[in-house]
Amino acid sequence: MKLLASFLFLALGSLQAQDPLPSWNDTAPKKTIIAFVERVTKEGSPEFVRPEERIATFDNDGTLWAEQPIYFQFAFAIDRVKALAPQHLEWKKEQPFAAVLSGDKKALVASGQKGLMQIMAVSHSGMSTEEFARIVAQWFATARHPRFNRPYTDLVYQPTLELLAYLRANGFKTFIVSGGGVEFMRPWVEKAYGIPPDQVVGSSGKLKFELRDGKPVIVKLPALDFIDDKAGKPVGIQKFIGRRPIFAFGNSDGDQQMLEWTASGAGERFMGLVHHDDAEREWAYDRKSDVGRLDKAWDEAKAKGWVVVSMKDDWATIFPLAK
Amino acid sequence: MKLLASFLFLALGSLQAQDPLPSWNDTAPKKTIIAFVERVTKEGSPEFVRPEERIATFDNDGTLWAEQPIYFQFAFAIDRVKALAPQHLEWKKEQPFAAVLSGDKKALVASGQKGLMQIMAVSHSGMSTEEFARIVAQWFATARHPRFNRPYTDLVYQPTLELLAYLRANGFKTFIVSGGGVEFMRPWVEKAYGIPPDQVVGSSGKLKFELRDGKPVIVKLPALDFIDDKAGKPVGIQKFIGRRPIFAFGNSDGDQQMLEWTASGAGERFMGLVHHDDAEREWAYDRKSDVGRLDKAWDEAKAKGWVVVSMKDDWATIFPLAK
Repeated sequence: MKLLASFLFLALGSLQAQDPLPSWNDTAPKKTIIAFVERVTKEGSPEFVRPEERIATFDNDGTLWAEQPIYFQFAFAIDRVKALAPQHLEWKKEQPFAAVLSGDKKALVASGQKGLMQIMAVSHSGMSTEEFARIVAQWFATARHPRFNRPYTDLVYQPTLELLAYLRANGFKTFIVSGGGVEFMRPWVEKAYGIPPDQVVGSSGKLKFELRDGKPVIVKLPALDFIDDKAGKPVGIQKFIGRRPIFAFGNSDGDQQMLEWTASGAGERFMGLVHHDDAEREWAYDRKSDVGRLDKAWDEAKAKGWVVVSMKDDWATIFPLAK
Repeated sequence: MKLLASFLFLALGSLQAQDPLPSWNDTAPKKTIIAFVERVTKEGSPEFVRPEERIATFDNDGTLWAEQPIYFQFAFAIDRVKALAPQHLEWKKEQPFAAVLSGDKKALVASGQKGLMQIMAVSHSGMSTEEFARIVAQWFATARHPRFNRPYTDLVYQPTLELLAYLRANGFKTFIVSGGGVEFMRPWVEKAYGIPPDQVVGSSGKLKFELRDGKPVIVKLPALDFIDDKAGKPVGIQKFIGRRPIFAFGNSDGDQQMLEWTASGAGERFMGLVHHDDAEREWAYDRKSDVGRLDKAWDEAKAKGWVVVSMKDDWATIFPLAK
């Protein structure tokens, strides 16, 4: 097997010689990432981490793909309400549905958290998980982003795609840990990110196993089961992954506790935040990922030396639009 | 790279020539398993299943390891109550704890579901997830099974160990889907079965992220979050895996809905049940995995042609005891 080993060595050598992150500028974040990966994968070094422990977790909205002008899942929910409206004539006079159907943004915002939950419930429950996956896939095949006039899945970030692939090539297991709905993400993330459904941690509604026309189905119920955001993210990581990440990437306060949980483990750690400061190629909402307040994760990142990635300065390419 | 491909081909060829399931007798179950795996992995055949879809789910208690005279997790809980008793002098007069401490089985059974939940709560909550993992690991290092006088982890089944390895060698992703506690299983299943923590689906209690002495911890709360048993198993599969298995193995009614869910998908399927009929080498509780009733899964298995594995007739070895 000596000859085989030599061939593998040569093959790996030529892979390493290529730039693993070509869409990243040669600035500090890229260097820090590569140095981290080289440290934890170097056998025999004190910083070496066994492949089994190489868990990397990524937020989705604002970290792996865009989240403006509204979360894409909410755009889906609104389109879904419109598609269902002909079967619900009463919605013309009922909030928050009337606001959605007439495009009345002010009334929609006024409906608040309760209105949001009603929109999510009618668009995300009642059907089987398989029916929902089909509805989601069909939406992605036809819906277009209002600014870029392209499928929403075109608005994934090329640099984090490369980062996911680079980590996997170095023995990392890559997970999504998102506040978004797990059933909304699973139909497309494998193709978009190379992340299989069982490596997606997200918010979820309650499910029920039952027989419909004699066939087993799993039905999505109109009740929240788990919110995978803020302090829910370390909990979601424990529930679904059962190991503390050594590498975590986010972009807002929704990710702060995930980053704290990652940072507080023993040994080498990498914590990163994507900074939205590129109005021309993406958006420049800076620290305002939520309405009316400033993300605090940035203060902690600065105080603790987490890596802040400027989309403007550190990313040579944003979207893989040219296909 | 042609030479490399030839070497890999030769290496794979020599692996295939070995018997992948040496602890299985040459009876129908072994032949059915091997024929199934060969069908779904044969590229270009109509039965071919993409590696991404090759999901295999295994019950744990009674399928991957023994479950007599009581579930091993309950043996852990009882030992834990005894270990904590010096800090809880009131337990001497309080049920169900008094029954545990005095070994009064009748009083313990009389405490019913409520008593069971109290024992599980005091033994499984209050500490951080990391502390609990250490407590579990320590118990496994010292506790001995009453009949075999060996560590409980010696009572895994050699034939299903070989089956897990055989499936993985053929591109399957192997998962545990157990009514047992996920935090109880994770500390040892990677070493015992080669299954990483994120591929363990089980019952769980609620968790809370908080700071203790300024350090982030995840605390196990004394409240049930999810019961991964019976109709909960397909739900657990959807929540944690997000794909329907094409291969499922169980041994009791706790697994019936998992097997039904697996069976009702499109394409090739394998459903198996382990039959405990070997009093000499293991136990012969037959269809009575639960007290006072007969498992019904056997009727469905017989009616639908699921594979029933007789421990007595189909397994040449039960435990990997000779080490």
